[in-house]
Amino acid sequence: MQIAVLTFDGFNELDSFVAAAILNRMRSRGWEAHITSPTPHVTSMNGVTVERQQPLDFASKADAVIVGSGVRTREIAADPLMLGRIRLDPARQLIGAQCSGTLLLAKLGLIGNLLACTDLTTKPWVIEAGVEVLDAPFVAHGNVATAGGCLASQYLAAWIISRLAGIDAAADALHYVAPVGEKALYVDRAIGVVRPFLMAEAAAGAA
Amino acid sequence: MQIAVLTFDGFNELDSFVAAAILNRMRSRGWEAHITSPTPHVTSMNGVTVERQQPLDFASKADAVIVGSGVRTREIAADPLMLGRIRLDPARQLIGAQCSGTLLLAKLGLIGNLLACTDLTTKPWVIEAGVEVLDAPFVAHGNVATAGGCLASQYLAAWIISRLAGIDAAADALHYVAPVGEKALYVDRAIGVVRPFLMAEAAAGAA
Repeated sequence: MQIAVLTFDGFNELDSFVAAAILNRMRSRGWEAHITSPTPHVTSMNGVTVERQQPLDFASKADAVIVGSGVRTREIAADPLMLGRIRLDPARQLIGAQCSGTLLLAKLGLIGNLLACTDLTTKPWVIEAGVEVLDAPFVAHGNVATAGGCLASQYLAAWIISRLAGIDAAADALHYVAPVGEKALYVDRAIGVVRPFLMAEAAAGAA
Repeated sequence: MQIAVLTFDGFNELDSFVAAAILNRMRSRGWEAHITSPTPHVTSMNGVTVERQQPLDFASKADAVIVGSGVRTREIAADPLMLGRIRLDPARQLIGAQCSGTLLLAKLGLIGNLLACTDLTTKPWVIEAGVEVLDAPFVAHGNVATAGGCLASQYLAAWIISRLAGIDAAADALHYVAPVGEKALYVDRAIGVVRPFLMAEAAAGAA
């Protein structure tokens, strides 16, 4: 599995790296999550400059895509040229958005009239874009998921691993990254958050 | 407050960036947490190349230091020249180690015969270095703290903020990064983890 973690200038490190690092726990099974950016280097909201691992058009070829978050998302969401470069297809890709990434998905027409999650800062802009926002860390509708609050990015990773490799693989990845002495607590909560959406998907597939 | 997050080649992104991003929530109060490395660029265990924000000798001048973790820590711990370049002073700095960072602190003589936390992979090497390992996410002895399991780095950040700006400031920073709908849960647990060590410190100060 090839996964693009879309990361723009002004990015929030938590929103890109928590998901990418958890997804990369699956490297032994051939998975790779890549920091994917429009420019060769991107600089975070806290001044950390990172070399991209893939260019933006990699997103259209990936099996799954996470749209990261940052302090410049409103500019990107208002830039038709940049939006036009982000080509995603929920018919054949899993797509997750973290915090202000939800605003980009809304502008790309991938949220429609579905309920979504985002962070408290982005919430008014997402509502302004016509999306109803849930007071919850994570929601998925078919192949499109959204998460709110930086550390909720663990749930996006858990959902992608569960969908593409099963719940046990997601539990293993979360177990590794969870604090010592709190591993069962972290795994149980994350699986509890994503499981209802896996069951809904299984029911829809069986229907 | 100036904080060094020691980050070496092969670093685990979670271990450096979760702590740094939470500490940087204090930027409005003049705090800065910097990715601090021996070389101008470092590449993570998952191939992410980052420009350092500070050179290694910045660690000796910082108010607080977090020793990050990665897949090459055993090499660093066996390299007397590199160890000699890491100059820390618990008499005037707060020092925290994350996962295999605990092995470096042990080799630097900063753990002594105290109990410490580390991750499950590093545990045998830390024991081999003569340190007893706790089955817990976090422990602090005076100005030296250790944490185990990638996401326990939130507790290192909470401890540093609590020690230098108070528990309310730590709660604010954690509230921001916690998942939507789970913010009270995250804040309460993190404060619960670090509070006993703040009280022990206050009691020692008053004694």
